[in-house]
Amino acid sequence: MACNPYHHSHKIRHSISSLCKVKYALPNSSITAFPFRNSPFHPIKFSNFRSLSASSTAAGTSTPTTFSWDDVVRVSQPEYNPHDSSGLRGFFDKIKACNRGSEMQSEFLPFVIEDQIVGYIHGSFAENLRNFQKVFILSKDNCDGGHVTLHRMLKSAEDRSRAVGEVIKCLAEKELIPGIRNELYPVTSSFGAPVFFSLERAAAPYFGIKAYGVHMNGYVEKDGQKFLWIGKRSPVKPTFPGMLDHLVAGGLPHGIACGENLMKECEEEAGIPISLSSRAIPVGAVSYSDIDGHRFKRDVLFCYDLKLPEGFVPNNQDGEVEGFKLIPVAHVANVIKRTHFFKSNCSIVIIDFLVRHGFVSPENFGYLDLLQSLKSGDCS
Amino acid sequence: MACNPYHHSHKIRHSISSLCKVKYALPNSSITAFPFRNSPFHPIKFSNFRSLSASSTAAGTSTPTTFSWDDVVRVSQPEYNPHDSSGLRGFFDKIKACNRGSEMQSEFLPFVIEDQIVGYIHGSFAENLRNFQKVFILSKDNCDGGHVTLHRMLKSAEDRSRAVGEVIKCLAEKELIPGIRNELYPVTSSFGAPVFFSLERAAAPYFGIKAYGVHMNGYVEKDGQKFLWIGKRSPVKPTFPGMLDHLVAGGLPHGIACGENLMKECEEEAGIPISLSSRAIPVGAVSYSDIDGHRFKRDVLFCYDLKLPEGFVPNNQDGEVEGFKLIPVAHVANVIKRTHFFKSNCSIVIIDFLVRHGFVSPENFGYLDLLQSLKSGDCS
Repeated sequence: MACNPYHHSHKIRHSISSLCKVKYALPNSSITAFPFRNSPFHPIKFSNFRSLSASSTAAGTSTPTTFSWDDVVRVSQPEYNPHDSSGLRGFFDKIKACNRGSEMQSEFLPFVIEDQIVGYIHGSFAENLRNFQKVFILSKDNCDGGHVTLHRMLKSAEDRSRAVGEVIKCLAEKELIPGIRNELYPVTSSFGAPVFFSLERAAAPYFGIKAYGVHMNGYVEKDGQKFLWIGKRSPVKPTFPGMLDHLVAGGLPHGIACGENLMKECEEEAGIPISLSSRAIPVGAVSYSDIDGHRFKRDVLFCYDLKLPEGFVPNNQDGEVEGFKLIPVAHVANVIKRTHFFKSNCSIVIIDFLVRHGFVSPENFGYLDLLQSLKSGDCS
Repeated sequence: MACNPYHHSHKIRHSISSLCKVKYALPNSSITAFPFRNSPFHPIKFSNFRSLSASSTAAGTSTPTTFSWDDVVRVSQPEYNPHDSSGLRGFFDKIKACNRGSEMQSEFLPFVIEDQIVGYIHGSFAENLRNFQKVFILSKDNCDGGHVTLHRMLKSAEDRSRAVGEVIKCLAEKELIPGIRNELYPVTSSFGAPVFFSLERAAAPYFGIKAYGVHMNGYVEKDGQKFLWIGKRSPVKPTFPGMLDHLVAGGLPHGIACGENLMKECEEEAGIPISLSSRAIPVGAVSYSDIDGHRFKRDVLFCYDLKLPEGFVPNNQDGEVEGFKLIPVAHVANVIKRTHFFKSNCSIVIIDFLVRHGFVSPENFGYLDLLQSLKSGDCS
């Protein structure tokens, strides 16, 4: 296929200076400005949600990711900045970096199948679909501002998947949908609901469909202290090269259960045998809602914890990881607070780990807001 | 004070037959009917939320609570109903029992202080406040349907607390606010926000203020299997007598931090010394929103886990607990699914424990709905 194998906006290339916070000053416009409050009469809204600029979200620059494990260890130390131990500001920043662009929601049209909203398509991107009138129907309803649906002749999941797949192929050739993965995601209104058809993974954010993943924190307990196994992504990986990652994480393709998928990823990404990976426990989920141009990511990540034996050392099998390092959890928390070293959605899953394992507490100002912000997206 | 020391609607008195589900049949109108779905454009709403009747919420009947520890053990066994191991229906029922009456929200007036909504007062109950015109002002604004506020002369927290306290005393003498506790709750728009004044605990639901508590699950791990210490409340306790409870739980009075309050409750309720209770870890929070007549409970419970040594045996110090029992977590899950033995809000905190410790999984239909339902109230 004559397509660009990946999109440059996916490449995260940074110098260490842009990835670390400068001086770690906490401005006065702190947590209280975050719109995470809700009430029975006033559900959570994000209309005032300030998006981070491309530079501060570690996206869009072309400087290479130059930080090393030594840099990670250095900034993780308590003495690197002894004054920022209790504030949650650095965590909120990372969560905001995954929840950009809520003020652009009105630019998107609902993508409707069988009266269910399954996604959101940017008005400009939807114009590209007008050339495929046997597949996509763009309605301009005066009442609802318009929506996109599939042609009524496409009744079965198989017909829809095939027809939409051909459109995706054309759009990929025109570089309108970059980074084709040849991996199918189910299109559904919510997890466990009927699957209307299957869609190429790279197209998911252009159609704003819900996407699900499994993310696992692997930890070790030594003398009552907890450590996390952290991965560093290969510098040649098309997405987020060189950045920090969980021990194991992956998208959830169509037709595989979460637990089964996790065990597969454990084997491929960290060489964890089933005898160990089967002990991973599901511990909840996080979600985010991120608008970046024509792309609308509505992701739900199922979180797992795996307590590993002290002697176990992970070993990547698929070449996508440069290496792993075992780091005290409190130091990992510092890396998340102080830098943009982690792939952004991994930060959310690790913050969820920090909450569940008592590394933040109700005495930290903004605690309940932090809990709510872990499910900023539609978590269904 | 010539007041009824507690309200009969608080008393939970049941026969075992009304507390157990009959035959455990799962009707077709199952989880999919629950309105826990949301999306960036359609936040969670509860307009179709079906309330449980008084009888099914273990409130309002006069038969005594007759179940014993033997009953608890019997219904907890897997073989008691070998077919209900994976369904989440029993958990949803218990969460619904704490989130009744959302359809009655429109009967409540906002209670506003310094332009912040701090509570909700039932229109009929608010009529009782008209006799205290130097304290409460009822406005009938055509725009907002009316609201209640404090007299503008009451400027300091001390003045407000004193003036409102005197009103509460009068209302208690008329048995309009039963069960005075002589314990003060802070009145605030959200946790950590400025405290406008302090209010008698028993009055909190009549003014619909946010109320906070600390709830702790104490557990033991033996040979890789987890057990929970379960308490049974004293049969002479005014609220929820004879029902099952956590190892430790308590409301959060004004002026004490969560962790400090938890350690105090640990000592009083279960004889847990500070050397152990200081190891309890904060693991998140749950919330619910419950309307029952003129009462509107808007509670947020901070959840804690304490891993206890195998040899430790809790020992109640304040006479409020009949006894404790160590029960395998999977069996506790069965008790929650199959009965109304637990004090209703404890069920939510234990379901949160079950989620975080992997006793439910994404493969259980309704998993994400269950996670969301644990924070059905305003969790701020």
